[in-house]
Amino acid sequence: MRATIIHAARDIRLEEVDDLVLAAGLGEGGEPASGRDAIVRVVAACVCGSDLWPYRGVTETKEPRAIGHEFVGVVEQIGSAVTGVAVGDFVIAPFYDCDMTCTNCRNGVSPSCLDGNWWGRPDREGFPTGGAQAERVRVPHADGSLVVVPGPVDEALVPHLLALSDVMGTGHHAAVSAGVGPGSTVAVVGDGAVGLCAVIAAKRLGAERIVMMSRHPDRQALARRFGATDVVEQRGEEGVAAVKALFDDIGPDAVLECVGTAESMEQAILSARPGGMVGYVGVPHGGAELPIRTLFGTNVGVNGGVAPVRNYVEELLPDVLSGAIEPGLVFDLELPLSEVAEAYAAMDERRATKVLLRP
Amino acid sequence: MRATIIHAARDIRLEEVDDLVLAAGLGEGGEPASGRDAIVRVVAACVCGSDLWPYRGVTETKEPRAIGHEFVGVVEQIGSAVTGVAVGDFVIAPFYDCDMTCTNCRNGVSPSCLDGNWWGRPDREGFPTGGAQAERVRVPHADGSLVVVPGPVDEALVPHLLALSDVMGTGHHAAVSAGVGPGSTVAVVGDGAVGLCAVIAAKRLGAERIVMMSRHPDRQALARRFGATDVVEQRGEEGVAAVKALFDDIGPDAVLECVGTAESMEQAILSARPGGMVGYVGVPHGGAELPIRTLFGTNVGVNGGVAPVRNYVEELLPDVLSGAIEPGLVFDLELPLSEVAEAYAAMDERRATKVLLRP
Repeated sequence: MRATIIHAARDIRLEEVDDLVLAAGLGEGGEPASGRDAIVRVVAACVCGSDLWPYRGVTETKEPRAIGHEFVGVVEQIGSAVTGVAVGDFVIAPFYDCDMTCTNCRNGVSPSCLDGNWWGRPDREGFPTGGAQAERVRVPHADGSLVVVPGPVDEALVPHLLALSDVMGTGHHAAVSAGVGPGSTVAVVGDGAVGLCAVIAAKRLGAERIVMMSRHPDRQALARRFGATDVVEQRGEEGVAAVKALFDDIGPDAVLECVGTAESMEQAILSARPGGMVGYVGVPHGGAELPIRTLFGTNVGVNGGVAPVRNYVEELLPDVLSGAIEPGLVFDLELPLSEVAEAYAAMDERRATKVLLRP
Repeated sequence: MRATIIHAARDIRLEEVDDLVLAAGLGEGGEPASGRDAIVRVVAACVCGSDLWPYRGVTETKEPRAIGHEFVGVVEQIGSAVTGVAVGDFVIAPFYDCDMTCTNCRNGVSPSCLDGNWWGRPDREGFPTGGAQAERVRVPHADGSLVVVPGPVDEALVPHLLALSDVMGTGHHAAVSAGVGPGSTVAVVGDGAVGLCAVIAAKRLGAERIVMMSRHPDRQALARRFGATDVVEQRGEEGVAAVKALFDDIGPDAVLECVGTAESMEQAILSARPGGMVGYVGVPHGGAELPIRTLFGTNVGVNGGVAPVRNYVEELLPDVLSGAIEPGLVFDLELPLSEVAEAYAAMDERRATKVLLRP
């Protein structure tokens, strides 16, 4: 099978690798996990903003590794203990593996699954899983990780379903973490795919005013289509002032931080009204910690983290199936998997917001 | 009148100062604020844990200043525009002045009042207010800041009413900020007056299990009387492990940070379960900021700040009047105002949890 391997910064290659197989085929050590896994043929995958950190060398790639963590696909094989997923099912996978039965999963925090892990790494029992920018993935806890989409699945729905693998659920997590609800006033920092999905989420949860911070006309237009009521192009102190000016110089109830840099987090914290909340989902990069004195003095809270997108699929899927939300519109470029290196380059150079890949 | 003046670290003196008068008596510049103020005779005041920071020299005292910010008293004079408070009323004041009409006050964040300030400093129009460890205080926005206790007021209730000026509302804010509700599991970091009141608050909001972190037998006993179900004496890594062990090594839903040091905040953040929340009210001291990578990876949120105790008085007062909660039990020493220096020393040396002062 073919899989995407990152060798070093800006060195992304699609390579021929060993086929992934059910753990049961790997010997006695495979039990009992071997019976709970599945092999999924990838129908669509994509490149994440967080994939750009190793691509740009911001995080080090110490040795070649499989990359990619967002996918939808069709189940090809299942282990003997799998009951919730059948061969031929169209499934959505979250950007991590989880069992959905442990305390953390039941508490709504499936990325902290006691028996879970990240795609591309061996599972907890040492069996390979594979990255998602590939032809196949091995899913350790198929009944936990995978959600079956009732079929047949319309081809036009694929991008929207794929968004539930990460960006839509992540934008939703920013909004939920910030307590967005009916009547909320919201600002979104970050006009990438997650920020755009955060606009969808805020609108869906009933926000009455949504400010998108963006300098890109195409992303501004998509944000408005998703429900943004205002756009602010300034950044830094000017950006804070411009956002606050829209709310009587007090600020919005919630700010959704969808980037992960020190600058974007500062922007978010300073833009929120006293007593407001920052919901953050951007993977933190850079050395800055959270400024406790500023937060203390203004009663601005900070909540969020690695989005538990698996916990959100059941809530969001009906709105995707009905067409009420269209998060797949964040994909503005589609390429065959063979052009995965170009997909990274296009996102790195901001020629594309988010690239969908077809094996 | 007599008022407490801090001159430098460990130099606290009760001194004779000019009587405070209504701003209307200070000339034309006094209008219109002059009409909205009141002079309150202090019936009881106290020393706050945060007063110990300048007392210990952790924060610098650049020049002598009036100190004290918690008091209950009887209204002696009112300005011409005051309508909600009458001469002779027994009133509770929050630890700051606020108008309760601005956007921030209406948003529930009265310490960020657009027209408010701190006791001891001149108000926004430059008129003196006075500190609370004194015989009288001038209250700039009497209708906003003061809450009338329906009289006559039983002498035995005075300590409990005084607690609404700061510590009870502050403990409540920690619990509210952490989202404590029916069935919550809670740990409290800090066994001072605020931490003990946080136990009352958590119990009152329906927490089913409350762990108090404390090494002092008398404070442990009071915490248990207030509703703590468990006590953990260890600190640091051992303390984190001991708290988590009470919750299947996962941790409690909410941790209430009521100290303000880097160590106590770290203790709180590491003790919470994945997806849990830290409610913090300890005034931050020390250089440490909040560790965003730890928070991001565990989805632990941090929420709190300067407690909006004025916003909470109406909710908490009925439970004080009925005897349902007894926050005044945190006062374990009562002294005449003339012994205010001894009050500071007793708290500094941990001979007392919190000292009530009678002018």
